[in-house]
Amino acid sequence: MNTLPIDADAVARAADRLAGVAHRTPVLRSATLDRCTGAQVVCKAEHLQRIGAFKFRGGYNALAALPVDVRARGVVAFSSGNHAQAVAAAARMLDVSATIVMPDDAPAVKVEATIGYGAEVVRYDRYTQDRAAIGARLADERGATVIPPYDDPEVMAGQGTVASELLDEVGALDVLVVPVGGGGLIGGCAVAAAAHRGATRIIGVEPAGRRAARDALARGEVVEVPVPQTVLDGQQTPNVGTRPLAVMQALVDEVVGVSDAEVAVAMRFAALRMKQFLEPSGASALAAVLAGHLDVAGQRVGIVCSGGNVAPERFAALVGTAADVADPGVHHRDR
Amino acid sequence: MNTLPIDADAVARAADRLAGVAHRTPVLRSATLDRCTGAQVVCKAEHLQRIGAFKFRGGYNALAALPVDVRARGVVAFSSGNHAQAVAAAARMLDVSATIVMPDDAPAVKVEATIGYGAEVVRYDRYTQDRAAIGARLADERGATVIPPYDDPEVMAGQGTVASELLDEVGALDVLVVPVGGGGLIGGCAVAAAAHRGATRIIGVEPAGRRAARDALARGEVVEVPVPQTVLDGQQTPNVGTRPLAVMQALVDEVVGVSDAEVAVAMRFAALRMKQFLEPSGASALAAVLAGHLDVAGQRVGIVCSGGNVAPERFAALVGTAADVADPGVHHRDR
Repeated sequence: MNTLPIDADAVARAADRLAGVAHRTPVLRSATLDRCTGAQVVCKAEHLQRIGAFKFRGGYNALAALPVDVRARGVVAFSSGNHAQAVAAAARMLDVSATIVMPDDAPAVKVEATIGYGAEVVRYDRYTQDRAAIGARLADERGATVIPPYDDPEVMAGQGTVASELLDEVGALDVLVVPVGGGGLIGGCAVAAAAHRGATRIIGVEPAGRRAARDALARGEVVEVPVPQTVLDGQQTPNVGTRPLAVMQALVDEVVGVSDAEVAVAMRFAALRMKQFLEPSGASALAAVLAGHLDVAGQRVGIVCSGGNVAPERFAALVGTAADVADPGVHHRDR
Repeated sequence: MNTLPIDADAVARAADRLAGVAHRTPVLRSATLDRCTGAQVVCKAEHLQRIGAFKFRGGYNALAALPVDVRARGVVAFSSGNHAQAVAAAARMLDVSATIVMPDDAPAVKVEATIGYGAEVVRYDRYTQDRAAIGARLADERGATVIPPYDDPEVMAGQGTVASELLDEVGALDVLVVPVGGGGLIGGCAVAAAAHRGATRIIGVEPAGRRAARDALARGEVVEVPVPQTVLDGQQTPNVGTRPLAVMQALVDEVVGVSDAEVAVAMRFAALRMKQFLEPSGASALAAVLAGHLDVAGQRVGIVCSGGNVAPERFAALVGTAADVADPGVHHRDR
């Protein structure tokens, strides 16, 4: 096995930096979920993390790991999603100036939240301008550091604390199911889980129509795929990162795809049965388990619920037509 | 002060019966909620209780407190809401037969859930038949015991464990804000809080258009009020109970009303900011605090989030047009 881009010590250092800063998110259980899956399921509630998603862990860790003089010159990120808010929130906590490059058509609520955390937002036209080039130019002009969303050792190490916290709390798991976008979360979690006792199988979940992780694993190299229309807006990146892929090749057992309809069913289940509000990508790992894509009967299963940032209107549109998961514990009598 | 219908020992006995049976529900905090209210707020998450509402505590305690030979003859309850599911679920756990009297037009999902817990459901026409008479006749025929939804010492004592658990976990509170329907929850909680060190003010919250609790306190007797149209379906009872009123007269500082619009804003806040799914009545205490009906600035405030049983479609219809709570921590810059 080649040397991986991060090791368990990097995750442990991230956990030290995040102690008392990130929320130690709760572990949620549901008797109905256990009945429906035939497994013992624990859900790591990262939608209850600061900024409503796991991304805070990696963003904060990356900023906190910078040398003080480097950090003082500020940071730059480009994102229209949770990474933007993560970097903005972490920068405010560390008293660092942050510039976030966001598309002109980013949802107003996300732009305002980012500004609310004290960041400067620079808009661009996503059809005519290259956000990476804008970010790099801004960083260069200001001597600031770009914080990548996933292909970065400290970002990955921060995300890995999701798994180390979960395993510390619940003990050994047979399977850990993790959403995959760029791969930062699953990369960090796989390294953290490998350092724990017990052999936890690591399963990734990506949109059914986006095979970036599955194709990259099959070919042994990063593959750029066309990004389909999907409700899984947190996983619409056209590729996984080079560093995450290296970890996935070594430590991830399988990646499965979930459909938009399966995700809507999982969001509805989380709301009805667990009273939790998940965004589509935040429910993707739960969807894979509920849809039966994994053989988990009789096993101890961890699911990462990775985020909850979705407008109630969008939530309603998605779950309104979703089916209820049949509960084998509910026996209908003839009436 | 006259002798109250329950004392702190009754709540302590209920806590013993519920230990390892009811969920010890989590206490949720939100930095945004603290900013918006100027207070330090803790939310007791009873929407994460078994059956999705605090009612399980009282229902189970009432059944468990029955002599074994009485319990063996079964129990009867009449309810179209959470009390039905509470009694049905408790009966199954205690291996007792339960008969639930529900109106013909009760939501199918609630009827099926009650049947799913193994209860027999007897339907009636709410426009031509008297459910109390039907329940009493059934109990009489079968030698079964009627479990009232709120005007019962053991039901009240069970609900009181909501407050004793909260105060055990978070220490003294300046104020505890509790939804009021029939008064079983606030009655139990007020007795439990009075037994703790520190003087916790107890504030009740009822629908703005239903003055059953406020009028009863003003007149010193149970008052039957017309029940208005309101989204607060868990608080549409036309009166508070005799026993709860006795406690409220002695121990409750104030009851305030909340409008349907204020409740929708609170449900939206809980979803967007706390990622929690609350039913309207479950959000009524939060609504009273967010709407500014209470002077809580600088205080330690407990809020009982009492239930989360609402269909996603209804949730969507209610919060779709609700306003966002302005967050004083979000400063908008000129762009």
